[in-house]
Amino acid sequence: MSLPTPEGYYPLDEPGLRVWLAQRPALAAKVGGAPADWHITEVGDGNLNLVFLVRGAAGGVCVKQSLPYVRAAGESWPMPLERAFFEYQHQQVAGPHLAGLVPQIWHYDPLLYASVMELLSPHIILRQGLLAGRRYPQAVTAVAEFAARSAVLTSALAQPFEAVFDQAALFSRNHALTRVTAELVFADPFEDLPRNRWTSPELDEVAASVRADAALRAAVARLGHRFLTQQDALLHGDLHTGSVMVSDNDTRVIDPEFAVYGPVGFDTGAFLANLLMAYFSQPGHATAADDRRDHADWILQQAGVFWRHFAQRFDALWQAHADGDAWPRRLFVGEEGVFARARREHLQQVFADTLGFAGAEIIRRILGFAHNLDFEAIADRSQRAAAETRALTLARALLLQPQRFADIDSVLDSAQALVEAEAVAA
Amino acid sequence: MSLPTPEGYYPLDEPGLRVWLAQRPALAAKVGGAPADWHITEVGDGNLNLVFLVRGAAGGVCVKQSLPYVRAAGESWPMPLERAFFEYQHQQVAGPHLAGLVPQIWHYDPLLYASVMELLSPHIILRQGLLAGRRYPQAVTAVAEFAARSAVLTSALAQPFEAVFDQAALFSRNHALTRVTAELVFADPFEDLPRNRWTSPELDEVAASVRADAALRAAVARLGHRFLTQQDALLHGDLHTGSVMVSDNDTRVIDPEFAVYGPVGFDTGAFLANLLMAYFSQPGHATAADDRRDHADWILQQAGVFWRHFAQRFDALWQAHADGDAWPRRLFVGEEGVFARARREHLQQVFADTLGFAGAEIIRRILGFAHNLDFEAIADRSQRAAAETRALTLARALLLQPQRFADIDSVLDSAQALVEAEAVAA
Repeated sequence: MSLPTPEGYYPLDEPGLRVWLAQRPALAAKVGGAPADWHITEVGDGNLNLVFLVRGAAGGVCVKQSLPYVRAAGESWPMPLERAFFEYQHQQVAGPHLAGLVPQIWHYDPLLYASVMELLSPHIILRQGLLAGRRYPQAVTAVAEFAARSAVLTSALAQPFEAVFDQAALFSRNHALTRVTAELVFADPFEDLPRNRWTSPELDEVAASVRADAALRAAVARLGHRFLTQQDALLHGDLHTGSVMVSDNDTRVIDPEFAVYGPVGFDTGAFLANLLMAYFSQPGHATAADDRRDHADWILQQAGVFWRHFAQRFDALWQAHADGDAWPRRLFVGEEGVFARARREHLQQVFADTLGFAGAEIIRRILGFAHNLDFEAIADRSQRAAAETRALTLARALLLQPQRFADIDSVLDSAQALVEAEAVAA
Repeated sequence: MSLPTPEGYYPLDEPGLRVWLAQRPALAAKVGGAPADWHITEVGDGNLNLVFLVRGAAGGVCVKQSLPYVRAAGESWPMPLERAFFEYQHQQVAGPHLAGLVPQIWHYDPLLYASVMELLSPHIILRQGLLAGRRYPQAVTAVAEFAARSAVLTSALAQPFEAVFDQAALFSRNHALTRVTAELVFADPFEDLPRNRWTSPELDEVAASVRADAALRAAVARLGHRFLTQQDALLHGDLHTGSVMVSDNDTRVIDPEFAVYGPVGFDTGAFLANLLMAYFSQPGHATAADDRRDHADWILQQAGVFWRHFAQRFDALWQAHADGDAWPRRLFVGEEGVFARARREHLQQVFADTLGFAGAEIIRRILGFAHNLDFEAIADRSQRAAAETRALTLARALLLQPQRFADIDSVLDSAQALVEAEAVAA
């Protein structure tokens, strides 16, 4: 590796990890048995890191290590190792509020920028499950719970502002990944940059029309400004279906390395967008045995479940924990109706943000650097392009005609109408 | 003094300051002549600090030192000394953008929590000048310029977000004074607390009705939430007419010890509120020789000049310096119209915030702990109560009926109508 790294850092490989873990008895005991018998595989399929699964007689651990560059781009795109530190800090700050919704992190190594955490088994990535046509009935409520708990319990709604300011200051040092978001989400898709890509030539015209749409650019820039200035709560920062691991009866949100204080709607918008993209992608995954219509309908319905559960829990948690300096509950004793209306009005703003950020997320996943497997796995290029075009049409409406979407159902109806219009035309 | 203080700290007095300054040749030279000949007076008339003016053969210096308690309340209300550090940091961060609008700080002493700064002479406090019936034609444009430059040039509109995040993190440690704001502005006036006071018994009923008004409490709580979460730019944090020093041809904004990143409208709202309170107070300062009607009209007109100059400069500075990560100008090349509309819409939000924060400032200055000399100096209690009541009426309208105020003129017209209705009734 040619990039400079701090003294003591080296990228783990299978033999190196075996030695390193064996030297740490508490961690080795979680794997169990003789180190020589451990089964180690590297499974990192994301854009950034090394991820090892280590299995042994007693169970196993997952080891995640930062690389000094963007894995999906190679050494030509350096990326500071510190992101592992912020992922660990997310667990320190938000973890106590998120028991059962995130993996436990057992050890953080500041030299290797590596975390050793709970091995989730038999979990798979939610995106992979949705792609395979499987249903996880509790998944979106768990993600909604994660988002609602983060939104209220790490905020000045529930905490003295001093604690919130200190936490926000800590995560505000997460410069490298916040810059990734600021550029990849809020700027790149609107510029003619070599790191952008799209299904070409099928989407060339759409990509050009997005770049040429100044009103769309302004709508996204407004959200970019909100992302950088509205420090409501500790965000996950990259809450897509690839950041969720599921089994039939368990759901965990992983990979909070983009953690930063920001507007609550950024996380909910990202997750909603990824459910909508999964929905739009379904016709491309149809087989002779399964036209995927039922699965698509189920995914769309889950998008509604997600928002409604988030909204209900956000309100209930706020009401129950309003002991912070923002909206102190003690000012509304005996005035529950006024307080409830205030919460409802605030939630409307979070909803509006959610739709806008969802639109920005869809655009950047189709026209920017980092794409979604939902679309990428569609072999038929014209089908993929058609699905992506439908998603982009909804994204533009979310950003430019927000008045069309008074509630989550109006969003889902619009998504469905786009698919059905296509079905009729075909 | 019974409160514990860090080693090396002692409160300055006249002999102590003379010795301390004489030991620092660069500073002593600014005073000039023999230390024994220096003329030293303590003039701190604010709520918090010691302020000494030192004059000598070459000119002079102003020395401002933190006390470990709130001066206006005594040792029963301790207050960390660090506020002097944040005032000094405000000059470090915002000072380069504010040349000629703030005093120069020549020295900061971290042991004494004291700053040595430019002696402004023949300046007086703007509030005192307005009380005395004097006009300062350039004052409000200078304060508007201060607010606009701070709003744009310390923000992610003009700077990379990394720099802004680092600065915001620094000022987020200004816990003690931010807590003063969070409590005195956004909570106290709505609770029955011993540190609240008002013109009693004349305003007893009004104070009770404010405390009983749940919708008003909700409107103020919403602004309190914005104050703690919307980190647009580095605020002065206490931008009233007592934080401005004026001469006939020079204006300087002083005392930024409440500095913290927050919503731009907080500063503009505070200043607007204090001009409005100065306006409402004028009948109470009438004499046989001067009924103060012209002066009142001039002050009200200055409130309009203040907002319009701020709005124009905010827009122009944003347009000229949009090289930050929020609203990057490079995305709007050849689309000046779209960019201009976006700036206009953003400014509408700042205007709405300004009116809301102005309402909250008026309420807390009349019903809370820290009052304004504009009203306090009215000897006739019923006149004082009448002026305060008019101000409170406008404040409630600003908070509860914002739709009535589409522009600054509608605010000024309402203020004038309140005074004229009274004049007719009398």
